[in-house]
Amino acid sequence: MTDSTPRSAAIPSKHVNITGGYWGERQTVNRERTIPAIYQQLEKTGQLEALNLKRSHPNTRSVIYMFWDSDIGKWLEAVGYSLESHPDPELEKLTDDVIDRMAGAQQADGYLNTYFSVLEPENRFRNLRDWHELYNAGHLMEGAVAYSRATGKPKAQQILARFADLIDATFGPEDHQKHGYCGHPEIEMGLVRLYQATGEKRYLNLAKYFIDERGQPNPHYFDVEAAARGDDPSKFWAKTYHYCQAHAPIREQAGATGHSVRACYLYGGVADIAAETQDETLVAASKRFWDDLTEHQMYITGGLGPAHANEGFTFAYDFPNESAYAETCASIALVFWAQRMFRLDPHSRYIDVMERALYNGVMSGVSAQGDQFFYANPLASYPYVNPYEHWSGIGTPRHYRRSDWFFCACCPPNLSRLVASVGGYFYAVSGATVYAQLYNSSSAQLQVNGSAVTLEQHTDYPWNGDVHWAVRVEQTTEFDLALRIPDWCRDFQIAVNGSPMTPEPVNGYAHLRRRWSNGDEVRLSLVMPVERMMAHPEVRQDAGTIALQRGPVVYCLEEMENGSRLANVTIPREARLNPASAPNLFGGVSTISGDALRVEPANWGSGLYHPQSRVQPTPSPFTFQAIPYAFWANREPGEMRVWLREA
Amino acid sequence: MTDSTPRSAAIPSKHVNITGGYWGERQTVNRERTIPAIYQQLEKTGQLEALNLKRSHPNTRSVIYMFWDSDIGKWLEAVGYSLESHPDPELEKLTDDVIDRMAGAQQADGYLNTYFSVLEPENRFRNLRDWHELYNAGHLMEGAVAYSRATGKPKAQQILARFADLIDATFGPEDHQKHGYCGHPEIEMGLVRLYQATGEKRYLNLAKYFIDERGQPNPHYFDVEAAARGDDPSKFWAKTYHYCQAHAPIREQAGATGHSVRACYLYGGVADIAAETQDETLVAASKRFWDDLTEHQMYITGGLGPAHANEGFTFAYDFPNESAYAETCASIALVFWAQRMFRLDPHSRYIDVMERALYNGVMSGVSAQGDQFFYANPLASYPYVNPYEHWSGIGTPRHYRRSDWFFCACCPPNLSRLVASVGGYFYAVSGATVYAQLYNSSSAQLQVNGSAVTLEQHTDYPWNGDVHWAVRVEQTTEFDLALRIPDWCRDFQIAVNGSPMTPEPVNGYAHLRRRWSNGDEVRLSLVMPVERMMAHPEVRQDAGTIALQRGPVVYCLEEMENGSRLANVTIPREARLNPASAPNLFGGVSTISGDALRVEPANWGSGLYHPQSRVQPTPSPFTFQAIPYAFWANREPGEMRVWLREA
Repeated sequence: MTDSTPRSAAIPSKHVNITGGYWGERQTVNRERTIPAIYQQLEKTGQLEALNLKRSHPNTRSVIYMFWDSDIGKWLEAVGYSLESHPDPELEKLTDDVIDRMAGAQQADGYLNTYFSVLEPENRFRNLRDWHELYNAGHLMEGAVAYSRATGKPKAQQILARFADLIDATFGPEDHQKHGYCGHPEIEMGLVRLYQATGEKRYLNLAKYFIDERGQPNPHYFDVEAAARGDDPSKFWAKTYHYCQAHAPIREQAGATGHSVRACYLYGGVADIAAETQDETLVAASKRFWDDLTEHQMYITGGLGPAHANEGFTFAYDFPNESAYAETCASIALVFWAQRMFRLDPHSRYIDVMERALYNGVMSGVSAQGDQFFYANPLASYPYVNPYEHWSGIGTPRHYRRSDWFFCACCPPNLSRLVASVGGYFYAVSGATVYAQLYNSSSAQLQVNGSAVTLEQHTDYPWNGDVHWAVRVEQTTEFDLALRIPDWCRDFQIAVNGSPMTPEPVNGYAHLRRRWSNGDEVRLSLVMPVERMMAHPEVRQDAGTIALQRGPVVYCLEEMENGSRLANVTIPREARLNPASAPNLFGGVSTISGDALRVEPANWGSGLYHPQSRVQPTPSPFTFQAIPYAFWANREPGEMRVWLREA
Repeated sequence: MTDSTPRSAAIPSKHVNITGGYWGERQTVNRERTIPAIYQQLEKTGQLEALNLKRSHPNTRSVIYMFWDSDIGKWLEAVGYSLESHPDPELEKLTDDVIDRMAGAQQADGYLNTYFSVLEPENRFRNLRDWHELYNAGHLMEGAVAYSRATGKPKAQQILARFADLIDATFGPEDHQKHGYCGHPEIEMGLVRLYQATGEKRYLNLAKYFIDERGQPNPHYFDVEAAARGDDPSKFWAKTYHYCQAHAPIREQAGATGHSVRACYLYGGVADIAAETQDETLVAASKRFWDDLTEHQMYITGGLGPAHANEGFTFAYDFPNESAYAETCASIALVFWAQRMFRLDPHSRYIDVMERALYNGVMSGVSAQGDQFFYANPLASYPYVNPYEHWSGIGTPRHYRRSDWFFCACCPPNLSRLVASVGGYFYAVSGATVYAQLYNSSSAQLQVNGSAVTLEQHTDYPWNGDVHWAVRVEQTTEFDLALRIPDWCRDFQIAVNGSPMTPEPVNGYAHLRRRWSNGDEVRLSLVMPVERMMAHPEVRQDAGTIALQRGPVVYCLEEMENGSRLANVTIPREARLNPASAPNLFGGVSTISGDALRVEPANWGSGLYHPQSRVQPTPSPFTFQAIPYAFWANREPGEMRVWLREA
């Protein structure tokens, strides 16, 4: 620690009751549609049934994929968070049955992995680089902790603690142990959660071991294990260990690289260990990765990783729109990581990024109805074009649309667990300071310096910048209410009990330090105009274009309201841009309408190319309608575009 | 035939002596650098040595690729054309030795293929879909015909005639014959050439058989042969037979599809058979493919096939610039096909396309020095980006540059044979009409209605639109000199012996029909301003941009003269655009300079995205320098861009 500020602690979702608004609606959909839909898919694919399979009882249906267990872990976690605020005995019974099956699938020594137990017991822990054993374990740990905490039933957590004990015995610095770590990070955050839930320091130390060991050369663990398998390490399909962030020891890595989900899971784990162990070299590495990613490699939607080929990063300022991979899981992982960065460094910039990702690149991952999902989240869409494959031009137009499920279905349950726990991102407490991070109608029970404080929040955010709090305390209590002034906001007012206050924001927060009495009222008004956003001048794909943003929400044009050929739509510099409430659209959102031109050549006739003088481009004015990007592809298929040309 | 016009005949390169100018320079480079460089590569890779290998004498160096023979065929063809105008006893001796090796490699039954003879004799003609046996044979036929004609030595042609006889016996409608055709078309044009050289009608009939049989269903030949190999036809990697234009019988195919080189080779063969057999259904199909391709699927450079995945076509109006595959061979094949289309339909539109391809997408395939080659020809280039793979972002910037050679080296010798024979595209004769197609200083010996006519042409085309002819005849001769008025030209003057003439162009030709006397002079002045070209409004990638074209030449900006961040360069609508002669650049070219703005936000500071109001974009004027696109990437590595934003 560079200063003596205690690490802040986020208020867990259990203590933040969402009472309506944006996240109230999204949680209802998540609870009523998404969680059941995922369960049905886990049944349909055979993923739950795989838990019942035994090596000695092969089942013809058992085409088990090596990342299946992680989906169960994430679904379990979503259920846990959901039960905190909405008890559901039927769902709990269903879930207890899944946990019983997990217990049955666990081997005598604590090992738990359907793929290897049923299909390849001889290959356990033999290919950490490519297979997902520890990744699956990490997700199961997170799910088990959430479920046991929500229900008070220890079984799930006990199962995973037994598995963690086996992993702890298997991996480590001793000669008889494997000096490895998972090609797909996740277990680091899972072990820290298990440590936080159990107090068992071995789990924290193991997570730290994985972080410290990662990318160490001479010899490189992935080379060693490849050779032990009889494989040639130089034949690694992804070419270099940048893909899995194992090209160098963590503390020597320069920036964000490789597979974007692996990257952000890893960085989240690094920040966890930095916070838990006060390791300043890891704090420095975390900030370096954060700055590189948010300054050079993040879409305006909070999407990460432009390329399908490595599901990840390419190079600085590279933001293809149509082919943007921008995996839903990567934006989700960015949210996780951002929360951990704030713990290291209480500055609003982490929450600004978290908010950008949440309202855009994360929530675009699920349909308004809650039962279809995007894996990749492009920023422009045309018939025939999808972010997985450019070559798709045979037959009738094919539009890129959300799917019921995926072969590798990491995104749907990941999104579900985040939505179910989103209340856990609303507040953080550090000493006598209460940070208000994300704004949404809710009732939060906090402990501030030993006193119980309830904050009742009412707002229509992100569609409106007015936020109102009522403070409930049993006796007057002194604390510092630190209101985040988002990076997108350039003008705001604050009033306490009707009296204007003018605190100058520090590190992005307007601090209201006072003795609070029961019934005190706080009003925050964030002025929320429509902004014409520009991308950095190095972003060649967005040159000459703007994106519309209002508050944290990025907008897009869809063909439905705006016709096709959106590439030919231009927004004049002086265009009128008006927000409007659309209460019947997607459960209630804001839209933006404004002046636009459709600039198409007149008298084109036949031919692909003509001199401009022969086909004078003619602008026809029309009024465009933009919808929040996260809600695109919920209606008729058609074109979509975020970055719009300027007239 | 829909009319009684006789099919025109192109005047072969043998009778067109190029005396300087653009093609004089390119042919010198081709002869002095390219042909020797290719020979060295054929030696270095072991391709020539493979001809010496025997099944019974395996050679450790014999990693033979199944398309190797085609490279030899194309090189042989380039040598043949080159020797026509520039006898070279040493080169001829070298080539005779290659032909002796071919004779040695030929099997007793006439079969000739290094891959199958040496490595898999048991698999001969068992996978026409994927292997390249008949494709190789076709290229060898074309090469052998060219070489035998140039040198008067029949050996090469005799070898290939023997092979053609074997193929003719193997494939056909009889029960004992295979009812197949090659997955990679080419042999169709090769057989027609062999027929034209030998008069042996069986070769023509066999080519027609391949065309007629292609894509016939119930059963589909590729299904049949896959099953015979024990393969599952539905596992075809390219998914559908669109890839190889065998998804339907030729006459039922709707448009250009699949692998772009296969497509244009096939369509060239179709046009050949249409012309030779007067088959109107094939004429109609040819025109349908042509219209679809040139109206919907051709880059402004004459590049074809935007996608790397299938090396081919995607869908109408899809023209990604950075990732444009636009294989050099595809533009070359378009030139071949265009010439054959003109034979079917004497209209300048085919030659307009041929010319566009030649000066842009073909010639970009070779370095100014003649010894490095592009396979893919993108229309914009940035460090880290290449048209083969978007994911290339690790380490220092990598620029897409020409290569010495390729694993599959189809493009270099293809380009070489075209440059060596380019004089054969200058004139065509039909009855008493002499079509002047491409303009370049040259001396052409024609036979028009039985009379010898020599046309001496002088011009600095394509850098200058003035073309001058002196007519040499032994006695006054009546014929119609039809001068092509290119599609890019909107104003021209013609004078005969100093007297202005004003023929109205018919089908793109200004006809000068008269009795020509020895020494008559013709002047054609094509007014050649710099044009701001626009792409069809459906081309989303080029919306709001223009490309600079002067005459048939498309220009580009390179970083060397214009700095980086070319995406931020805009060309104002009223910009001054001046052509300039650059005699010392690439052996003498024209450039274009003009007014441009570099529009970058001021005061950007840090951060990826900012409201426009905070970072007012500021235009700074500068004078740009554009060079001909075909000559890009010949100097320092840097950005390149054809389509430029408008201010």
